[in-house]
Amino acid sequence: MPPEPFFDGPGIDRADALRADPAVLAAMAGHPDARQLRWANGFPELTADGRLAWAPVDRPELFLGRIGEAGCFCAIEDADVSAWAAFPLLSILTADDAPLFAAALSLSRWHARHRFCANCGQPTEVTRGGWSRRCPDCSSEHFPRVDPVVIMIAEFDGALLLGRQPQYPPGRYSALAGFVEVGENIEAAVRRELGEEAGIRVRGVTYVASQPWPFPASLMIGCRAEAESDELTIDTNELEDARWFSRAEVAAALAGAVGAPFAAPPRAAIARTLLEHWLTA
Amino acid sequence: MPPEPFFDGPGIDRADALRADPAVLAAMAGHPDARQLRWANGFPELTADGRLAWAPVDRPELFLGRIGEAGCFCAIEDADVSAWAAFPLLSILTADDAPLFAAALSLSRWHARHRFCANCGQPTEVTRGGWSRRCPDCSSEHFPRVDPVVIMIAEFDGALLLGRQPQYPPGRYSALAGFVEVGENIEAAVRRELGEEAGIRVRGVTYVASQPWPFPASLMIGCRAEAESDELTIDTNELEDARWFSRAEVAAALAGAVGAPFAAPPRAAIARTLLEHWLTA
Repeated sequence: MPPEPFFDGPGIDRADALRADPAVLAAMAGHPDARQLRWANGFPELTADGRLAWAPVDRPELFLGRIGEAGCFCAIEDADVSAWAAFPLLSILTADDAPLFAAALSLSRWHARHRFCANCGQPTEVTRGGWSRRCPDCSSEHFPRVDPVVIMIAEFDGALLLGRQPQYPPGRYSALAGFVEVGENIEAAVRRELGEEAGIRVRGVTYVASQPWPFPASLMIGCRAEAESDELTIDTNELEDARWFSRAEVAAALAGAVGAPFAAPPRAAIARTLLEHWLTA
Repeated sequence: MPPEPFFDGPGIDRADALRADPAVLAAMAGHPDARQLRWANGFPELTADGRLAWAPVDRPELFLGRIGEAGCFCAIEDADVSAWAAFPLLSILTADDAPLFAAALSLSRWHARHRFCANCGQPTEVTRGGWSRRCPDCSSEHFPRVDPVVIMIAEFDGALLLGRQPQYPPGRYSALAGFVEVGENIEAAVRRELGEEAGIRVRGVTYVASQPWPFPASLMIGCRAEAESDELTIDTNELEDARWFSRAEVAAALAGAVGAPFAAPPRAAIARTLLEHWLTA
Protein backbone atom coordinates (compact mmCIF):
# COMPACT_ATOMS: atom_id res chain seq x y z
CA MET A 1 0.00 0.00 0.00
CA PRO A 2 1.81 3.14 -1.16
CA PRO A 3 1.65 6.28 1.02
CA GLU A 4 -1.12 8.65 -0.02
CA PRO A 5 -0.68 12.36 -0.60
CA PHE A 6 -2.34 14.74 1.83
CA PHE A 7 -4.75 16.40 -0.63
CA ASP A 8 -6.07 13.02 -1.82
CA GLY A 9 -9.46 12.86 -0.08
CA PRO A 10 -12.75 12.54 -1.96
CA GLY A 11 -13.90 16.06 -1.09
CA ILE A 12 -17.66 16.51 -1.52
CA ASP A 13 -20.05 15.80 -4.40
CA ARG A 14 -19.27 18.55 -6.92
CA ALA A 15 -22.60 17.93 -8.68
CA ASP A 16 -21.21 19.47 -11.82
CA ALA A 17 -24.32 18.63 -13.86
CA LEU A 18 -26.23 21.16 -11.73
CA ARG A 19 -23.86 24.08 -12.22
CA ALA A 20 -25.54 25.34 -15.37
CA ASP A 21 -28.97 25.75 -13.74
CA PRO A 22 -29.28 29.01 -11.73
CA ALA A 23 -32.67 27.96 -10.29
CA VAL A 24 -31.23 24.73 -8.86
CA LEU A 25 -28.24 26.62 -7.43
CA ALA A 26 -30.58 29.18 -5.83
CA ALA A 27 -32.63 26.38 -4.26
CA MET A 28 -29.49 24.80 -2.85
CA ALA A 29 -28.36 28.18 -1.47
CA GLY A 30 -31.78 28.59 0.18
CA HIS A 31 -31.76 25.17 1.83
CA PRO A 32 -31.77 25.35 5.67
CA ASP A 33 -28.48 23.40 5.81
CA ALA A 34 -26.76 25.47 3.09
CA ARG A 35 -23.43 26.91 4.12
CA GLN A 36 -20.68 29.26 3.04
CA LEU A 37 -16.98 29.00 3.80
CA ARG A 38 -15.65 31.50 6.32
CA TRP A 39 -12.52 33.31 5.26
CA ALA A 40 -9.71 34.66 7.47
CA ASN A 41 -6.42 36.34 6.53
CA GLY A 42 -6.65 35.29 2.90
CA PHE A 43 -7.39 31.61 3.56
CA PRO A 44 -10.44 29.48 4.32
CA GLU A 45 -10.86 29.70 8.10
CA LEU A 46 -10.22 26.58 10.20
CA THR A 47 -11.67 25.52 13.53
CA ALA A 48 -9.30 24.65 16.37
CA ASP A 49 -9.55 20.98 15.39
CA GLY A 50 -8.58 21.63 11.78
CA ARG A 51 -11.99 21.52 10.09
CA LEU A 52 -13.25 24.11 7.60
CA ALA A 53 -15.32 26.79 9.36
CA TRP A 54 -18.78 27.50 7.87
CA ALA A 55 -21.30 30.32 8.15
CA PRO A 56 -24.81 30.93 6.78
CA VAL A 57 -24.96 31.78 3.07
CA ASP A 58 -24.80 35.48 2.20
CA ARG A 59 -22.67 35.63 -1.00
CA PRO A 60 -23.12 32.29 -2.80
CA GLU A 61 -20.86 33.28 -5.72
CA LEU A 62 -18.99 29.98 -6.13
CA PHE A 63 -20.77 26.62 -5.85
CA LEU A 64 -18.34 24.10 -4.34
CA GLY A 65 -20.75 21.16 -4.28
CA ARG A 66 -23.51 19.71 -2.18
CA ILE A 67 -24.09 17.71 0.96
CA GLY A 68 -27.49 16.09 0.44
CA GLU A 69 -29.74 18.82 -0.98
CA ALA A 70 -27.83 21.64 0.71
CA GLY A 71 -25.33 23.68 -1.25
CA CYS A 72 -21.79 24.53 -0.09
CA PHE A 73 -20.65 27.92 -1.34
CA CYS A 74 -17.75 30.32 -1.23
CA ALA A 75 -17.53 34.06 -1.88
CA ILE A 76 -14.90 35.46 -4.24
CA GLU A 77 -11.96 36.63 -2.11
CA ASP A 78 -8.55 37.70 -3.30
CA ALA A 79 -6.96 34.68 -1.68
CA ASP A 80 -3.44 34.59 -0.30
CA VAL A 81 -1.58 31.94 -2.26
CA SER A 82 1.73 31.89 -0.40
CA ALA A 83 2.38 28.32 0.64
CA TRP A 84 4.72 29.64 3.33
CA ALA A 85 1.91 31.65 4.92
CA ALA A 86 -0.39 28.61 4.67
CA PHE A 87 1.86 26.02 6.31
CA PRO A 88 0.65 26.73 9.88
CA LEU A 89 -2.91 26.08 8.67
CA LEU A 90 -1.89 23.01 6.66
CA SER A 91 -0.27 21.55 9.78
CA ILE A 92 -3.68 21.37 11.50
CA LEU A 93 -6.04 20.96 8.50
CA THR A 94 -7.74 17.53 8.51
CA ALA A 95 -7.13 15.37 5.44
CA ASP A 96 -10.93 15.03 4.96
CA ASP A 97 -11.31 18.77 4.40
CA ALA A 98 -8.07 19.26 2.45
CA PRO A 99 -9.50 18.87 -1.09
CA LEU A 100 -12.27 21.40 -0.41
CA PHE A 101 -9.78 23.81 1.18
CA ALA A 102 -7.70 23.54 -2.00
CA ALA A 103 -10.66 23.91 -4.38
CA ALA A 104 -11.97 27.02 -2.60
CA LEU A 105 -8.57 28.68 -2.42
CA SER A 106 -7.71 28.09 -6.10
CA LEU A 107 -11.17 28.94 -7.41
CA SER A 108 -11.56 32.11 -5.37
CA ARG A 109 -8.12 33.38 -6.30
CA TRP A 110 -8.71 32.66 -9.98
CA HIS A 111 -11.89 34.76 -10.03
CA ALA A 112 -10.26 37.61 -8.12
CA ARG A 113 -7.41 37.79 -10.66
CA HIS A 114 -9.38 37.00 -13.84
CA ARG A 115 -12.19 39.56 -13.94
CA PHE A 116 -11.43 40.61 -17.52
CA CYS A 117 -11.56 38.82 -20.85
CA ALA A 118 -8.07 37.79 -22.03
CA ASN A 119 -9.39 37.79 -25.61
CA CYS A 120 -10.84 41.32 -25.76
CA GLY A 121 -10.20 43.10 -22.44
CA GLN A 122 -13.84 43.59 -21.37
CA PRO A 123 -15.17 42.70 -17.87
CA THR A 124 -16.51 39.14 -17.69
CA GLU A 125 -19.34 37.56 -15.66
CA VAL A 126 -19.39 34.54 -13.37
CA THR A 127 -21.25 31.59 -14.93
CA ARG A 128 -21.85 27.90 -14.13
CA GLY A 129 -21.89 28.51 -10.39
CA GLY A 130 -18.35 29.88 -10.54
CA TRP A 131 -16.83 27.19 -12.76
CA SER A 132 -16.40 29.58 -15.67
CA ARG A 133 -16.54 33.26 -16.64
CA ARG A 134 -18.17 34.50 -19.82
CA CYS A 135 -17.48 37.64 -21.82
CA PRO A 136 -20.71 39.47 -22.75
CA ASP A 137 -18.78 41.31 -25.46
CA CYS A 138 -16.98 38.60 -27.50
CA SER A 139 -18.73 35.52 -26.00
CA SER A 140 -15.43 33.85 -24.99
CA GLU A 141 -15.79 31.44 -22.11
CA HIS A 142 -12.88 31.16 -19.67
CA PHE A 143 -12.33 28.25 -17.28
CA PRO A 144 -10.39 28.14 -14.00
CA ARG A 145 -6.73 27.25 -14.51
CA VAL A 146 -5.16 24.05 -13.28
CA ASP A 147 -1.40 24.12 -13.92
CA PRO A 148 0.30 20.72 -14.11
CA VAL A 149 3.69 20.57 -12.36
CA VAL A 150 6.08 17.63 -12.32
CA ILE A 151 7.85 16.98 -9.02
CA MET A 152 10.37 14.19 -8.91
CA ILE A 153 13.09 12.31 -7.15
CA ALA A 154 16.00 10.85 -9.12
CA GLU A 155 17.80 7.75 -7.90
CA PHE A 156 21.37 6.62 -8.54
CA ASP A 157 23.06 3.64 -6.92
CA GLY A 158 20.66 3.58 -3.95
CA ALA A 159 20.86 7.33 -3.27
CA LEU A 160 18.26 10.00 -3.85
CA LEU A 161 18.63 13.47 -5.37
CA LEU A 162 17.07 16.38 -3.47
CA GLY A 163 17.55 20.10 -3.88
CA ARG A 164 17.33 23.28 -1.89
CA GLN A 165 15.83 26.60 -3.01
CA PRO A 166 17.09 29.80 -1.34
CA GLN A 167 13.67 30.59 0.19
CA TYR A 168 13.39 27.20 1.99
CA PRO A 169 13.51 27.10 5.80
CA PRO A 170 16.98 26.28 7.23
CA GLY A 171 18.11 22.72 6.49
CA ARG A 172 15.14 21.85 4.23
CA TYR A 173 15.80 19.76 1.12
CA SER A 174 13.00 18.67 -1.19
CA ALA A 175 12.17 17.16 -4.57
CA LEU A 176 12.92 19.14 -7.74
CA ALA A 177 9.91 20.46 -9.63
CA GLY A 178 8.79 22.50 -12.61
CA PHE A 179 5.77 23.35 -14.77
CA VAL A 180 4.78 21.06 -17.63
CA GLU A 181 4.93 23.11 -20.85
CA VAL A 182 2.80 22.98 -24.00
CA GLY A 183 3.92 20.24 -26.35
CA GLU A 184 5.46 17.92 -23.77
CA ASN A 185 4.17 15.03 -21.71
CA ILE A 186 4.81 14.22 -18.06
CA GLU A 187 7.87 12.07 -18.75
CA ALA A 188 9.43 14.66 -21.08
CA ALA A 189 8.90 17.40 -18.49
CA VAL A 190 10.62 15.27 -15.81
CA ARG A 191 13.60 14.64 -18.10
CA ARG A 192 13.83 18.32 -19.08
CA GLU A 193 13.61 19.67 -15.52
CA LEU A 194 16.22 17.24 -14.15
CA GLY A 195 18.48 18.16 -17.05
CA GLU A 196 18.02 21.90 -16.60
CA GLU A 197 18.21 22.09 -12.81
CA ALA A 198 20.68 19.32 -11.93
CA GLY A 199 22.43 18.53 -15.21
CA ILE A 200 21.57 14.82 -15.06
CA ARG A 201 20.15 12.52 -17.71
CA VAL A 202 17.55 9.97 -16.61
CA ARG A 203 16.43 6.67 -18.09
CA GLY A 204 13.16 5.46 -16.64
CA VAL A 205 10.46 7.81 -15.43
CA THR A 206 7.52 6.39 -13.47
CA TYR A 207 4.45 8.03 -11.99
CA VAL A 208 4.00 7.74 -8.21
CA ALA A 209 1.09 9.94 -7.05
CA SER A 210 -0.54 13.34 -7.55
CA GLN A 211 -2.28 16.05 -5.57
CA PRO A 212 -3.66 19.55 -6.04
CA TRP A 213 -1.52 22.34 -4.58
CA PRO A 214 -3.53 25.55 -4.29
CA PHE A 215 -0.67 28.08 -4.38
CA PRO A 216 -2.24 29.22 -6.63
CA ALA A 217 -3.60 26.31 -8.72
CA SER A 218 -1.10 23.54 -9.41
CA LEU A 219 -1.66 19.86 -10.01
CA MET A 220 1.48 18.27 -8.57
CA ILE A 221 2.40 15.12 -10.50
CA GLY A 222 4.89 13.10 -8.43
CA CYS A 223 7.38 10.89 -10.31
CA ARG A 224 10.64 9.05 -9.87
CA ALA A 225 13.44 8.50 -12.35
CA GLU A 226 16.70 6.57 -12.67
CA ALA A 227 19.74 8.82 -13.19
CA GLU A 228 22.50 7.69 -15.56
CA SER A 229 25.24 9.14 -13.32
CA ASP A 230 25.60 11.04 -10.04
CA GLU A 231 27.55 13.96 -11.50
CA LEU A 232 25.57 17.15 -10.91
CA THR A 233 25.65 20.50 -12.71
CA ILE A 234 23.41 22.70 -10.59
CA ASP A 235 21.48 25.63 -12.09
CA THR A 236 22.18 28.22 -9.41
CA ASN A 237 19.39 30.45 -10.70
CA GLU A 238 16.92 27.81 -9.52
CA LEU A 239 18.68 25.94 -6.72
CA GLU A 240 21.00 26.89 -3.90
CA ASP A 241 22.19 23.28 -3.64
CA ALA A 242 21.39 19.73 -4.72
CA ARG A 243 22.78 16.55 -3.13
CA TRP A 244 22.43 12.79 -3.05
CA PHE A 245 21.11 11.28 0.18
CA SER A 246 21.29 7.65 1.32
CA ARG A 247 18.34 5.57 2.44
CA ALA A 248 19.43 5.94 6.10
CA GLU A 249 19.70 9.72 5.73
CA VAL A 250 16.22 10.00 4.20
CA ALA A 251 14.77 7.76 6.93
CA ALA A 252 16.38 9.92 9.64
CA ALA A 253 15.03 13.11 8.06
CA LEU A 254 11.48 11.70 7.77
CA ALA A 255 11.64 10.60 11.42
CA GLY A 256 12.81 14.07 12.42
CA ALA A 257 15.75 12.42 14.16
CA VAL A 258 18.32 14.48 16.05
CA GLY A 259 21.35 14.92 13.78
CA ALA A 260 19.40 14.14 10.59
CA PRO A 261 21.33 15.55 7.61
CA PHE A 262 18.37 17.58 6.34
CA ALA A 263 14.86 18.71 7.29
CA ALA A 264 12.17 16.79 5.36
CA PRO A 265 9.24 18.54 3.65
CA PRO A 266 6.01 18.77 5.72
CA ARG A 267 3.23 16.19 5.38
CA ALA A 268 1.05 18.45 3.19
CA ALA A 269 3.75 18.51 0.48
CA ILE A 270 3.74 15.65 -2.04
CA ALA A 271 7.55 15.73 -1.90
CA ARG A 272 7.21 14.01 1.48
CA THR A 273 4.97 11.35 -0.08
CA LEU A 274 7.68 10.72 -2.69
CA LEU A 275 10.30 10.22 0.03
CA GLU A 276 8.01 7.87 1.97
CA HIS A 277 7.25 5.95 -1.21
CA TRP A 278 10.94 5.59 -2.04
CA LEU A 279 11.71 4.19 1.42
CA THR A 280 8.90 1.62 1.33
CA ALA A 281 8.80 0.63 -2.37
CA MET B 1 7.61 -2.48 -23.11
CA PRO B 2 4.32 -0.56 -22.95
CA PRO B 3 3.09 1.16 -26.15
CA GLU B 4 4.13 4.81 -26.35
CA PRO B 5 1.78 7.68 -27.11
CA PHE B 6 2.23 9.51 -30.41
CA PHE B 7 3.18 12.93 -28.98
CA ASP B 8 5.92 11.42 -26.80
CA GLY B 9 9.05 12.38 -28.73
CA PRO B 10 11.85 14.49 -27.23
CA GLY B 11 11.09 17.53 -29.40
CA ILE B 12 14.02 19.96 -29.54
CA ASP B 13 16.13 21.67 -26.88
CA ARG B 14 13.79 24.32 -25.46
CA ALA B 15 16.75 26.18 -23.95
CA ASP B 16 14.46 27.81 -21.44
CA ALA B 17 17.34 29.48 -19.58
CA LEU B 18 17.89 31.67 -22.68
CA ARG B 19 14.32 32.90 -23.03
CA ALA B 20 14.77 35.89 -20.73
CA ASP B 21 17.65 37.38 -22.77
CA PRO B 22 16.45 39.34 -25.83
CA ALA B 23 20.03 39.75 -27.15
CA VAL B 24 20.59 35.98 -27.15
CA LEU B 25 17.23 35.39 -28.84
CA ALA B 26 18.07 38.02 -31.49
CA ALA B 27 21.43 36.32 -32.15
CA MET B 28 19.69 32.95 -32.56
CA ALA B 29 17.15 34.51 -34.93
CA GLY B 30 20.02 36.00 -36.97
CA HIS B 31 21.95 32.71 -37.26
CA PRO B 32 22.24 31.47 -40.89
CA ASP B 33 20.46 28.21 -39.95
CA ALA B 34 17.65 29.94 -38.02
CA ARG B 35 14.17 28.95 -39.17
CA GLN B 36 10.54 29.79 -38.72
CA LEU B 37 7.59 27.41 -38.95
CA ARG B 38 5.43 27.75 -42.04
CA TRP B 39 1.74 27.93 -41.38
CA ALA B 40 -1.14 26.75 -43.61
CA ASN B 41 -4.90 26.73 -42.99
CA GLY B 42 -4.54 27.32 -39.27
CA PHE B 43 -1.94 24.60 -38.62
CA PRO B 44 1.82 24.24 -38.90
CA GLU B 45 2.47 23.25 -42.50
CA LEU B 46 3.73 19.74 -43.27
CA THR B 47 5.86 18.45 -46.11
CA ALA B 48 4.58 15.54 -48.19
CA ASP B 49 6.59 13.15 -45.98
CA GLY B 50 5.03 14.48 -42.77
CA ARG B 51 7.81 16.74 -41.53
CA LEU B 52 7.32 20.30 -40.28
CA ALA B 53 7.90 22.82 -43.10
CA TRP B 54 10.31 25.69 -42.36
CA ALA B 55 11.03 29.09 -43.89
CA PRO B 56 13.58 31.85 -43.23
CA VAL B 57 12.89 33.94 -40.12
CA ASP B 58 10.76 37.04 -40.61
CA ARG B 59 8.55 37.23 -37.49
CA PRO B 60 10.45 35.50 -34.65
CA GLU B 61 7.73 36.17 -32.06
CA LEU B 62 7.78 32.79 -30.30
CA PHE B 63 11.04 30.98 -29.53
CA LEU B 64 10.42 27.23 -29.77
CA GLY B 65 13.98 26.17 -28.99
CA ARG B 66 17.31 25.68 -30.71
CA ILE B 67 19.15 23.29 -32.96
CA GLY B 68 22.80 23.96 -32.23
CA GLU B 69 23.17 27.77 -32.15
CA ALA B 70 20.27 28.36 -34.54
CA GLY B 71 16.89 29.38 -33.20
CA CYS B 72 13.57 27.79 -34.20
CA PHE B 73 10.73 30.31 -34.18
CA CYS B 74 7.06 30.66 -34.83
CA ALA B 75 4.88 33.69 -35.56
CA ILE B 76 1.67 34.29 -33.60
CA GLU B 77 -1.21 32.91 -35.69
CA ASP B 78 -4.79 32.40 -34.60
CA ALA B 79 -4.43 28.65 -34.84
CA ASP B 80 -7.24 26.30 -35.71
CA VAL B 81 -7.66 23.98 -32.76
CA SER B 82 -10.26 21.59 -34.10
CA ALA B 83 -8.88 18.09 -33.71
CA TRP B 84 -11.27 16.95 -36.45
CA ALA B 85 -9.74 19.38 -38.92
CA ALA B 86 -6.25 18.28 -37.84
CA PHE B 87 -6.67 14.51 -38.17
CA PRO B 88 -5.64 14.39 -41.88
CA LEU B 89 -2.40 16.15 -40.90
CA LEU B 90 -1.89 13.96 -37.83
CA SER B 91 -2.20 10.88 -40.00
CA ILE B 92 0.98 11.85 -41.91
CA LEU B 93 2.88 13.83 -39.22
CA THR B 94 6.10 12.03 -38.17
CA ALA B 95 6.37 11.16 -34.49
CA ASP B 96 9.72 13.01 -34.32
CA ASP B 97 8.08 16.33 -35.19
CA ALA B 98 4.88 15.74 -33.22
CA PRO B 99 5.92 17.46 -29.95
CA LEU B 100 7.06 20.61 -31.77
CA PHE B 101 3.86 20.63 -33.87
CA ALA B 102 1.90 20.50 -30.60
CA ALA B 103 3.98 23.17 -28.86
CA ALA B 104 3.70 25.62 -31.76
CA LEU B 105 -0.05 25.10 -32.17
CA SER B 106 -0.85 25.52 -28.45
CA LEU B 107 1.53 28.43 -27.91
CA SER B 108 0.45 30.37 -30.99
CA ARG B 109 -3.26 29.93 -30.22
CA TRP B 110 -2.76 31.00 -26.61
CA HIS B 111 -1.12 34.27 -27.67
CA ALA B 112 -3.78 34.96 -30.30
CA ARG B 113 -6.55 34.57 -27.71
CA HIS B 114 -4.80 36.10 -24.68
CA ARG B 115 -3.75 39.57 -25.82
CA PHE B 116 -5.31 41.31 -22.79
CA CYS B 117 -4.61 41.19 -19.07
CA ALA B 118 -7.19 39.02 -17.26
CA ASN B 119 -6.44 40.99 -14.08
CA CYS B 120 -7.01 44.53 -15.36
CA GLY B 121 -8.15 44.39 -19.00
CA GLN B 122 -5.20 46.27 -20.55
CA PRO B 123 -3.25 44.98 -23.60
CA THR B 124 -0.25 42.83 -22.63
CA GLU B 125 3.18 42.33 -24.24
CA VAL B 126 5.03 39.17 -25.29
CA THR B 127 7.96 38.41 -22.96
CA ARG B 128 10.45 35.54 -22.43
CA GLY B 129 10.55 34.68 -26.11
CA GLY B 130 6.82 33.98 -26.10
CA TRP B 131 6.67 31.91 -22.91
CA SER B 132 4.79 34.60 -21.03
CA ARG B 133 2.91 37.89 -21.49
CA ARG B 134 3.34 40.85 -19.17
CA CYS B 135 0.93 43.66 -18.38
CA PRO B 136 2.62 47.09 -18.52
CA ASP B 137 -0.25 48.50 -16.47
CA CYS B 138 -0.61 46.21 -13.42
CA SER B 139 2.63 44.16 -13.87
CA SER B 140 0.79 40.83 -13.84
CA GLU B 141 2.63 38.06 -15.68
CA HIS B 142 0.55 35.47 -17.54
CA PHE B 143 1.85 32.06 -18.65
CA PRO B 144 0.58 29.79 -21.46
CA ARG B 145 -2.12 27.42 -20.28
CA VAL B 146 -1.68 23.67 -20.08
CA ASP B 147 -4.99 22.04 -19.11
CA PRO B 148 -4.71 18.57 -17.53
CA VAL B 149 -7.34 16.09 -18.76
CA VAL B 150 -7.86 12.56 -17.47
CA ILE B 151 -8.70 9.96 -20.11
CA MET B 152 -9.39 6.45 -18.94
CA ILE B 153 -10.58 2.95 -19.61
CA ALA B 154 -12.51 1.03 -16.97
CA GLU B 155 -12.35 -2.75 -16.78
CA PHE B 156 -14.88 -5.22 -15.41
CA ASP B 157 -14.64 -9.00 -15.67
CA GLY B 158 -12.25 -8.89 -18.64
CA ALA B 159 -14.25 -6.31 -20.61
CA LEU B 160 -13.47 -2.69 -21.30
CA LEU B 161 -15.71 0.38 -21.11
CA LEU B 162 -15.67 2.76 -24.08
CA GLY B 163 -18.03 5.57 -24.99
CA ARG B 164 -19.25 7.43 -28.00
CA GLN B 165 -19.80 11.19 -28.31
CA PRO B 166 -22.35 12.43 -30.87
CA GLN B 167 -19.69 14.25 -32.93
CA TYR B 168 -17.52 11.11 -33.41
CA PRO B 169 -17.18 9.59 -36.90
CA PRO B 170 -19.57 6.67 -37.55
CA GLY B 171 -18.77 3.57 -35.48
CA ARG B 172 -16.04 5.22 -33.39
CA TYR B 173 -15.84 4.40 -29.67
CA SER B 174 -13.14 5.81 -27.43
CA ALA B 175 -12.00 6.27 -23.84
CA LEU B 176 -13.99 8.57 -21.55
CA ALA B 177 -12.29 11.82 -20.59
CA GLY B 178 -12.70 15.07 -18.67
CA PHE B 179 -10.78 18.05 -17.31
CA VAL B 180 -9.06 17.81 -13.93
CA GLU B 181 -10.58 20.49 -11.67
CA VAL B 182 -9.04 22.63 -8.94
CA GLY B 183 -8.84 20.77 -5.63
CA GLU B 184 -8.68 17.24 -7.04
CA ASN B 185 -5.89 14.91 -8.02
CA ILE B 186 -5.64 12.63 -11.06
CA GLU B 187 -7.21 9.64 -9.32
CA ALA B 188 -10.12 11.68 -7.93
CA ALA B 189 -10.79 13.16 -11.37
CA VAL B 190 -10.89 9.65 -12.91
CA ARG B 191 -13.36 8.46 -10.25
CA ARG B 192 -15.54 11.56 -10.65
CA GLU B 193 -15.67 11.43 -14.45
CA LEU B 194 -16.50 7.72 -14.58
CA GLY B 195 -19.21 8.32 -11.99
CA GLU B 196 -20.68 11.33 -13.81
CA GLU B 197 -20.54 10.00 -17.37
CA ALA B 198 -21.13 6.26 -16.93
CA GLY B 199 -22.58 5.93 -13.43
CA ILE B 200 -19.92 3.44 -12.31
CA ARG B 201 -17.80 3.32 -9.17
CA VAL B 202 -14.18 2.27 -9.55
CA ARG B 203 -11.67 0.80 -7.12
CA GLY B 204 -8.12 1.02 -8.33
CA VAL B 205 -6.88 3.80 -10.58
CA THR B 206 -3.46 3.48 -12.19
CA TYR B 207 -1.52 5.80 -14.48
CA VAL B 208 -0.60 4.44 -17.91
CA ALA B 209 0.88 7.22 -20.09
CA SER B 210 0.46 10.90 -21.03
CA GLN B 211 0.76 13.17 -24.02
CA PRO B 212 0.10 16.77 -25.01
CA TRP B 213 -3.02 17.33 -27.13
CA PRO B 214 -2.91 20.76 -28.77
CA PHE B 215 -6.65 21.28 -29.29
CA PRO B 216 -6.13 23.81 -27.79
CA ALA B 217 -3.70 22.99 -24.95
CA SER B 218 -4.48 19.80 -23.05
CA LEU B 219 -2.18 17.43 -21.22
CA MET B 220 -3.89 14.06 -21.65
CA ILE B 221 -3.25 11.82 -18.63
CA GLY B 222 -4.13 8.23 -19.56
CA CYS B 223 -5.31 5.93 -16.76
CA ARG B 224 -7.11 2.65 -16.16
CA ALA B 225 -9.46 1.68 -13.37
CA GLU B 226 -11.30 -1.38 -12.05
CA ALA B 227 -15.10 -0.99 -12.07
CA GLU B 228 -17.13 -2.41 -9.17
CA SER B 229 -19.96 -3.49 -11.49
CA ASP B 230 -20.90 -3.39 -15.17
CA GLU B 231 -24.22 -1.58 -14.68
CA LEU B 232 -24.10 1.70 -16.58
CA THR B 233 -26.06 4.92 -16.12
CA ILE B 234 -25.06 7.01 -19.10
CA ASP B 235 -25.08 10.82 -18.97
CA THR B 236 -26.71 11.51 -22.32
CA ASN B 237 -25.62 15.15 -22.21
CA GLU B 238 -22.03 13.93 -22.61
CA LEU B 239 -22.29 10.57 -24.35
CA GLU B 240 -24.45 9.10 -27.06
CA ASP B 241 -23.60 5.59 -25.89
CA ALA B 242 -21.21 3.61 -23.68
CA ARG B 243 -20.58 -0.14 -23.87
CA TRP B 244 -18.37 -2.93 -22.62
CA PHE B 245 -16.13 -4.60 -25.22
CA SER B 246 -14.31 -7.92 -24.93
CA ARG B 247 -10.61 -8.44 -25.53
CA ALA B 248 -11.35 -10.03 -28.94
CA GLU B 249 -13.54 -7.09 -29.92
CA VAL B 250 -10.87 -4.55 -28.98
CA ALA B 251 -8.22 -6.53 -30.84
CA ALA B 252 -10.41 -6.65 -33.96
CA ALA B 253 -11.06 -2.90 -33.79
CA LEU B 254 -7.34 -2.08 -33.39
CA ALA B 255 -6.53 -4.33 -36.36
CA GLY B 256 -9.22 -2.57 -38.41
CA ALA B 257 -10.68 -6.01 -39.12
CA VAL B 258 -13.74 -6.38 -41.35
CA GLY B 259 -16.78 -6.78 -39.11
CA ALA B 260 -15.04 -5.24 -36.06
CA PRO B 261 -17.72 -4.07 -33.61
CA PHE B 262 -16.38 -0.52 -33.47
CA ALA B 263 -13.87 1.84 -35.11
CA ALA B 264 -10.80 2.41 -32.92
CA PRO B 265 -9.38 5.89 -32.26
CA PRO B 266 -6.52 6.98 -34.60
CA ARG B 267 -2.87 6.51 -33.64
CA ALA B 268 -2.41 10.19 -32.66
CA ALA B 269 -5.01 9.82 -29.88
CA ILE B 270 -3.78 8.51 -26.53
CA ALA B 271 -7.06 6.57 -26.28
CA ARG B 272 -5.54 4.19 -28.83
CA THR B 273 -2.44 3.81 -26.65
CA LEU B 274 -4.69 2.88 -23.73
CA LEU B 275 -6.38 0.16 -25.80
CA GLU B 276 -3.02 -1.20 -26.99
CA HIS B 277 -1.73 -1.16 -23.43
CA TRP B 278 -4.78 -3.02 -22.15
CA LEU B 279 -4.36 -5.76 -24.77
CA THR B 280 -0.66 -6.29 -24.05
CA ALA B 281 -0.46 -5.72 -20.26
